[in-house]
Amino acid sequence: MQRLKCRVEYDGTAYAGYQVQPNGVTIQAKIENALTQMHKGERVKVIASGRTDAGVHAVGQVIHFDTNLHIPASNWKRALSSMLPSDIRVANAEQVSEDFHARYDAKGKEYRYYVWNSPEANLFRRLYTYHIRKPLDIESMREACRWVEGEHDFTSFCSPRTDLKGSKVRTIRKAAIEQQGTELVFIFKGNGFLYNMVRILVGTILEVGLGDRTPDELKTMLAAGDRKSAGKTAPPHGLFLWNVDY
Amino acid sequence: MQRLKCRVEYDGTAYAGYQVQPNGVTIQAKIENALTQMHKGERVKVIASGRTDAGVHAVGQVIHFDTNLHIPASNWKRALSSMLPSDIRVANAEQVSEDFHARYDAKGKEYRYYVWNSPEANLFRRLYTYHIRKPLDIESMREACRWVEGEHDFTSFCSPRTDLKGSKVRTIRKAAIEQQGTELVFIFKGNGFLYNMVRILVGTILEVGLGDRTPDELKTMLAAGDRKSAGKTAPPHGLFLWNVDY
Repeated sequence: MQRLKCRVEYDGTAYAGYQVQPNGVTIQAKIENALTQMHKGERVKVIASGRTDAGVHAVGQVIHFDTNLHIPASNWKRALSSMLPSDIRVANAEQVSEDFHARYDAKGKEYRYYVWNSPEANLFRRLYTYHIRKPLDIESMREACRWVEGEHDFTSFCSPRTDLKGSKVRTIRKAAIEQQGTELVFIFKGNGFLYNMVRILVGTILEVGLGDRTPDELKTMLAAGDRKSAGKTAPPHGLFLWNVDY
Repeated sequence: MQRLKCRVEYDGTAYAGYQVQPNGVTIQAKIENALTQMHKGERVKVIASGRTDAGVHAVGQVIHFDTNLHIPASNWKRALSSMLPSDIRVANAEQVSEDFHARYDAKGKEYRYYVWNSPEANLFRRLYTYHIRKPLDIESMREACRWVEGEHDFTSFCSPRTDLKGSKVRTIRKAAIEQQGTELVFIFKGNGFLYNMVRILVGTILEVGLGDRTPDELKTMLAAGDRKSAGKTAPPHGLFLWNVDY
């Protein structure tokens, strides 16, 4: 038996999210089905660093699973990718110790959120960016980002549909915005993220960029500890799980 | 009655090509249905600069149609776009004289073909680039391009499934390759293109880039006047109708 750790990329457009669920096709199901086929029908359980919602993409999702197949770790990337549909891909595979756990050992994550900021739509980026027609004040949004960095209780930026019972205190090491031509990239690095947290942060910061809120309202929202104090949840298709640190 | 000329963009992924046909959804059908709805059921015929194949994209397709609706030309872009699915978009609309014809008046066209040249796939460009894993010799391919420029009989670069009866002599003003990071962009400008011509040119030039053919074989192929002398037809999803000149 060997344990494998894989970095997985996927285009979330066609899926009902990462995690197996009764309704809709999921990324986890596609990967588990491919592995089950490779193991001649024996069911293989896949553990991921965390779930992603319907429509959310990943370039840095990390999974682990155990296998008794005699395939060298260096060949797994190709072997498993070839069994997956064209919108899911194993980017890297390596053997790890038997006590490695993709979820429990994750020390931090990076998410990126892409915005296409132009009066004109871009058809060919429509599945991977959130289109905002009106001009955005990037300096105001960067000021808002500074309130997000550090250790805070992020209750106001967590969907009430969460099943989390414990603390909502998280540390955000980086909250930044890069401009790449017509695209804005929101970058968030932290030790953990609550349900819908990045999308609510982006939705709220975009309201700052549109002039509907001031940057220091982020401070008030964090203090309120109430989802209603924050802004809208940005749509899923601009969001990428970018990296998981171990 | 006014005649409108529109520049139309589309993601060809979901379509059985531009032109209306019995099997499969087409871009022309989507546009004509939207116009028919706007005209309260009265059928509106749309003329395009030419057809594009299943899976081929456009940023510069040009169409014309006649309308008796009292909508200023400046509002047509938004009005028609709002009736179209998210993968088809009117980028520009203007009133033209009643004798303008999108097909007969076209003086030249530009096509671009995108190649993702890397051992690693890029999921998020998979629908818009042709993935070539092996390294390509760009200088050889540029040398091949030089044989393509000028006036030639392109019979060898035309699908035998064409219904064209007339001359296959065309003038290519520009055949060039730009490198944009991991992507190669093939640019072809000419007074007209035969059926599958750009895809056969790209497929053949890629064989030069892979070292399977020499650049000056392009000269021999042009002289042969036989489709069998040229290389493979590159797949449709890397191809974009970029611009039509009038």
